[in-house]
Amino acid sequence: MSSLGSMKDNQVLLAFSTYAIIAILKMMLMSFLTSYFRMTRKAFANLEDTKLVVPTEDKKFVVANPDVERVRRCHQNDLENVIPFVLVGLLYTLTGPDLSTALLHFRVFVGSRIFHTIAYIGCLPQPSRALCFTVGVLVTFSMAWTVLSTALFS
Amino acid sequence: MSSLGSMKDNQVLLAFSTYAIIAILKMMLMSFLTSYFRMTRKAFANLEDTKLVVPTEDKKFVVANPDVERVRRCHQNDLENVIPFVLVGLLYTLTGPDLSTALLHFRVFVGSRIFHTIAYIGCLPQPSRALCFTVGVLVTFSMAWTVLSTALFS
Amino acid sequence: MSSLGSMKDNQVLLAFSTYAIIAILKMMLMSFLTSYFRMTRKAFANLEDTKLVVPTEDKKFVVANPDVERVRRCHQNDLENVIPFVLVGLLYTLTGPDLSTALLHFRVFVGSRIFHTIAYIGCLPQPSRALCFTVGVLVTFSMAWTVLSTALFS
Repeated sequence: MSSLGSMKDNQVLLAFSTYAIIAILKMMLMSFLTSYFRMTRKAFANLEDTKLVVPTEDKKFVVANPDVERVRRCHQNDLENVIPFVLVGLLYTLTGPDLSTALLHFRVFVGSRIFHTIAYIGCLPQPSRALCFTVGVLVTFSMAWTVLSTALFS
Repeated sequence: MSSLGSMKDNQVLLAFSTYAIIAILKMMLMSFLTSYFRMTRKAFANLEDTKLVVPTEDKKFVVANPDVERVRRCHQNDLENVIPFVLVGLLYTLTGPDLSTALLHFRVFVGSRIFHTIAYIGCLPQPSRALCFTVGVLVTFSMAWTVLSTALFS
Repeated sequence: MSSLGSMKDNQVLLAFSTYAIIAILKMMLMSFLTSYFRMTRKAFANLEDTKLVVPTEDKKFVVANPDVERVRRCHQNDLENVIPFVLVGLLYTLTGPDLSTALLHFRVFVGSRIFHTIAYIGCLPQPSRALCFTVGVLVTFSMAWTVLSTALFS
C-alpha cells in the first residue's frame, strides 16, 4: 500500500502533486484572463471596478460582454471538473496504484483540460470541446471506480 | 490517532473515501443533466454548441431556459456545499474520530444532498430544500468544529 | 520530511487545518448572507422559494437584485480562490515546510480573503479588492511553486 507519510518516498504522490498543481494553476489563470477581457472590453460586474479604466465611475461600463461571459463559462467548467479530479485523485493516490497507470490518468486529464480551454476560448467547432470534456470526466470516473472498489472490497 | 499511511488499515478513511466519492459523483452527474436539458430544450450557452442539434449554427437556440437554469443552480449549490464537505471531511478523518460517529456524519451528509437534488430538480415546495441544505451544512460545521478543537487544544 | 500520519504530531498540519477550516467557514457563510439578502430584498431564484416570505407563491419576487448578485459574485470568487488554496495548501503541507514559513502563508491568505469580502460587500473603492485578490493568489502561487520544486527536483 502507498503511504502519504513522506512525499519524497512516494512516486505516485509526487506525480499527483505535479499534475494537480498544473491543473489548478491552469484553472486559476482563467481569473486573469477574465480580468484581461474585462479591461480590454470595458465590461465590468461592479460599478467601483469601472474606475480601473476610466477616471470616474461610469455605469455604462457595467455590462455583460460575450467574450467575458465565454471565459467565465470556461472557468466555471474548470471548477466543475478540475476540483473533482484533484479530490478524487488524492484518494486514488492513497489506494497505492501503479505509477504508470496513475501517470496515464493524470496526464490524459491535464491534457484534456488544456485542449478544453483552447477549444472553449478559441470557439472551435463542436464536438471538439465536448470530446475534451468527456475524456476528462472518464479519467475522473476511472479513478473514482478504483477508490470505490478499494474501499468496498478491502 | 488515525493514520493516512495506508487506506486499507484505516476504517474511517475507507468510509470517508466511499461517501466522498458518492457525493462527488452525484455532483458531476449534474453536468450530464445540464447537457440533457440543453439538448432536449434546445437552449445553449455557445453558438457553436447549437450544431449538436441542428445542421447549421443558429443564434435562436442561444437562449436561457428555466429548466436548464434550475439544474445549473442545483449544480452550483453542490459546488458550494459538497466540495467544503470533502475538504473538511478529509481533515476530520485525520483527527481520528470514532468510526460510528464518522459514518453518521458521512451518511447524513450524502443523504441530505441526494434529497436536496430531488427537492431542487423536482420543484418540491419549500422548506424541503432549505431543510436538506441546512442538514448538510450542519454536518460540515460539526466536522469543522472537531477539526478546530483538535488543532487548537492538542 | 513531514508526515500526515498523525495530526497531533505535525505542527504544520495542525496550523494548516486551522486556517483551512477558517477559510472554508468564511466561504460557507456567504450562503447565509445570500439567503439573508434574498429574504430582506424579496428577490428569489426559484418560484417555490417566494413562499418563504409571502403566503402564496408570487412570480414578481423571482427577480435579480443588485445586492444579492454582489454577494453571489463574492461567493463565486471565494470558490475560485479558497478551494485552490486548500488543495494546494494540503500538498504544500506534505512537502514538510518550516512551521514559520507555512504560518506566514496561511495567515496572509486568510487575512487577504477576509479583507476581500469586506471590500466586496462594502463596495470599497478599487483597487482595494483587486489588491486583496492579488495577495491571496500570490500566496497560493508561492505554495504551488514549493510543491512543484519538491516534486520535480526530489
